[in-house]
Amino acid sequence: MDIKNKSITSRDEDFARWYTDVCKKAELMDYSAVKGFIIYRPYGYAIWEEIQHYLDKEFKKTGHENVYLPLVINESLFQKEKDHVEGFAPECLIATIGGGQEIQDRLIIRPTSECLFCEHYSHIINSYRDLPKLYNQWCSVVRWEKTTRPFLRGSEFLRQEGHTMHASEDEARQETLRMLEIYDKMGKDLLAVPFVKGRKTEKEKFAGALETYSIEALMHDGKALQSGTTHYFGNGFSKAFGIQYLDKDGKIKNPYQTSWGVSTRLIGSIIMVHGDDNGLVLPPYVAPIQVVIVPIKMNEPGVLAKAKEIRDELINAGFRVKLDDSDKTPGWKFSEYEMKGVPLRIEVGPKDLANNCCMIHKRNDGTRTKYELNNISDLVKDLLATIHKEMYNAALKNLLANIKEVHTFEELKEVVDKCGYAKMMWCGDQACEDKIKELTNATARCIPFDQVEFDDKCPICGKKAKYVVLFAKAY
Amino acid sequence: MDIKNKSITSRDEDFARWYTDVCKKAELMDYSAVKGFIIYRPYGYAIWEEIQHYLDKEFKKTGHENVYLPLVINESLFQKEKDHVEGFAPECLIATIGGGQEIQDRLIIRPTSECLFCEHYSHIINSYRDLPKLYNQWCSVVRWEKTTRPFLRGSEFLRQEGHTMHASEDEARQETLRMLEIYDKMGKDLLAVPFVKGRKTEKEKFAGALETYSIEALMHDGKALQSGTTHYFGNGFSKAFGIQYLDKDGKIKNPYQTSWGVSTRLIGSIIMVHGDDNGLVLPPYVAPIQVVIVPIKMNEPGVLAKAKEIRDELINAGFRVKLDDSDKTPGWKFSEYEMKGVPLRIEVGPKDLANNCCMIHKRNDGTRTKYELNNISDLVKDLLATIHKEMYNAALKNLLANIKEVHTFEELKEVVDKCGYAKMMWCGDQACEDKIKELTNATARCIPFDQVEFDDKCPICGKKAKYVVLFAKAY
Repeated sequence: MDIKNKSITSRDEDFARWYTDVCKKAELMDYSAVKGFIIYRPYGYAIWEEIQHYLDKEFKKTGHENVYLPLVINESLFQKEKDHVEGFAPECLIATIGGGQEIQDRLIIRPTSECLFCEHYSHIINSYRDLPKLYNQWCSVVRWEKTTRPFLRGSEFLRQEGHTMHASEDEARQETLRMLEIYDKMGKDLLAVPFVKGRKTEKEKFAGALETYSIEALMHDGKALQSGTTHYFGNGFSKAFGIQYLDKDGKIKNPYQTSWGVSTRLIGSIIMVHGDDNGLVLPPYVAPIQVVIVPIKMNEPGVLAKAKEIRDELINAGFRVKLDDSDKTPGWKFSEYEMKGVPLRIEVGPKDLANNCCMIHKRNDGTRTKYELNNISDLVKDLLATIHKEMYNAALKNLLANIKEVHTFEELKEVVDKCGYAKMMWCGDQACEDKIKELTNATARCIPFDQVEFDDKCPICGKKAKYVVLFAKAY
Repeated sequence: MDIKNKSITSRDEDFARWYTDVCKKAELMDYSAVKGFIIYRPYGYAIWEEIQHYLDKEFKKTGHENVYLPLVINESLFQKEKDHVEGFAPECLIATIGGGQEIQDRLIIRPTSECLFCEHYSHIINSYRDLPKLYNQWCSVVRWEKTTRPFLRGSEFLRQEGHTMHASEDEARQETLRMLEIYDKMGKDLLAVPFVKGRKTEKEKFAGALETYSIEALMHDGKALQSGTTHYFGNGFSKAFGIQYLDKDGKIKNPYQTSWGVSTRLIGSIIMVHGDDNGLVLPPYVAPIQVVIVPIKMNEPGVLAKAKEIRDELINAGFRVKLDDSDKTPGWKFSEYEMKGVPLRIEVGPKDLANNCCMIHKRNDGTRTKYELNNISDLVKDLLATIHKEMYNAALKNLLANIKEVHTFEELKEVVDKCGYAKMMWCGDQACEDKIKELTNATARCIPFDQVEFDDKCPICGKKAKYVVLFAKAY
């Protein structure tokens, strides 16, 4: 059952269908026998590995250490912080039987690990010398979701979760902003995805957090995708879990806490920001295959040898390269690697050989250009950099064009229904937020860091406006 | 509560206690709030990361791809292969509640993933062109164990599991041997742990496998530790899960399967092969910190500057280095990093500065030598290579000295009670294996590849001997 090379639904016809078509046909994922749980296939998992490599380096550079904590949490432990348990309880998967026996203190498969980290910290933090603790964990978490969508919302997803403890409130707050900055930079450097950075409203923040910050991306269909969050907890969990340290001044204190995470959702973001009707379009630095080489008339003398020579030169220069010398037709290969979003395709045939040339196809704009075959690795380096810049700029242009100032509810409704972010002056009352949600299904995505006031009244209630806030429908 | 710098139990006094002391005091792990589940602390997790980097590279070099499959398996799916489910059923952790509702087809937290891989393979393998499939997964698995011990036997442990499918029996069999070879080489190159390679007896093989191979190490107390296994399944699962492909000859066939894995058990092996009464002794290439620099009389002019200069030079040369410039005493630092098993300690004080010298302490043999400070990175490179070789050779010598040929049951009992592997000629009947287990608690570790017959009768039953087999008590 070969599902390759069949056309996919177009984005304009049915964006949701287009999305799952791409996920399946680019072989990023497959559905498993367990409802809601997906299989991360090699091509999808390799994208996640590139994200991991990038972030792991950044985390270590900033002094973070990796750890691994259990995948289950005692129900009794989970209940220690009230807001937290209320937020997560409805979507918990719970293990009740172990080795054939009923488990007394039932085990929740981790939906997030704040409780476990806090319990651990209560044992290892004793003195101001033990602070800060800057831990990160690469793992999967489970949320029992009713409706799921590959990478965007699933019963299990892969992620990193940072959990840190600090002596001062100020240092903890700075940590949440520092990590948000790292996520934002990853968008710019690796994913070619521009984000809006901001703070979540009270209604939208993480269960148990005092403040939540997020990076929000804009998908092709005008919906927002929350792509990463950082949380400041104050010392609430710290007190609930009895984490105490002896400070320099001889006093016993509770440290201040943060947590932050991104997940395989980022893959969804890449797909929906960059993809087109031919399939995936991968930003060069996150692409598992950056260059595919397709030999034309492979059996003519010298063609395959030349293709291999190019491959070896590019691999030696550090690029991720695939030479497809299978017996499939060049046309089949072209559409296969276009579906998979490979940034560059190099075609080498007998004619090119004679002229010491090759044709190079850029996936992002579909251009096909003849180049001389001198110094191919410098050429590829430049082309990948160009593609990255073009993709980032196109996404940024789209984002900026679809953030629209609104002054009335009707304007807001039109924007969130059609194209993107409605930028509104807001009184700060949750009642107005609730009303918008009820009438339009849009939510407050964030209170952007960039606060330039443009109105003095909240268009919903008419009261004095306090913040610029962005509303959008979201995944 | 500072547990550092307190002495640990000696190995001869109580080896089991010594082991857990080292695990805790070298800060490799901690116990979590969930019984049987441990916390992999930064220093312990970093060792696992080095093992991952080594193996991931080897796996990719041999054409394997990483994937990620769900952490839960439907009970109905798990029951498809009879021997397999019988082997694992007693130690399953089962989730029965999701989002507040009872789950109809209960979910087993993966104890191993053969069933999930087979189910996935049944969807993606259709033609001989789809073979071989060479997948690997980095994950944790759960086995509900009654008695647990850090890294050796735990309710959850980290591991990799390879799952492959092949067109021919021969290719699949070769895969199991190829991967065993990679594990063995890792022992030699990275862990400085020599293994005995061999085939498991029928009694000891993996649930559902036709053949299991293993690498077996010898701990300081004379017990064996199974450190990695590879399994050949034939096409049993393949048939049970309906995995079929159309071969070149136009016939529908079932592919042949293997699986193979190593886990954080390897950390236990490192501890118990190399450790001593001062704590951990880490082989240089797997050590998270390869060199610690301890400045002596840190406040005297030039000392700290010199220490930093050495650190920077070594970091630039690619070593993992820590300069401890905290206000703790040098003596405290010495025993701290000895406990943590750091291979090399460089001491720099005012006197050394004047002579352009430094003292270097080798953790593995406790020697302390003065060296000139010229070309420190070449010196460190050589010393680390020497340490690795010394550690491997010492472990190999110990292994070989404790494999003893036995000709009677009494000899066997003496060997397994005192020191290590009893090498016996065996009739091949499980009855004799069972009898040995019953009377000595030793098990057949493997039928070593190296078969040099030295007797013609099985000492247990007196029947004709068929194989050389190694018996030992094991973790």
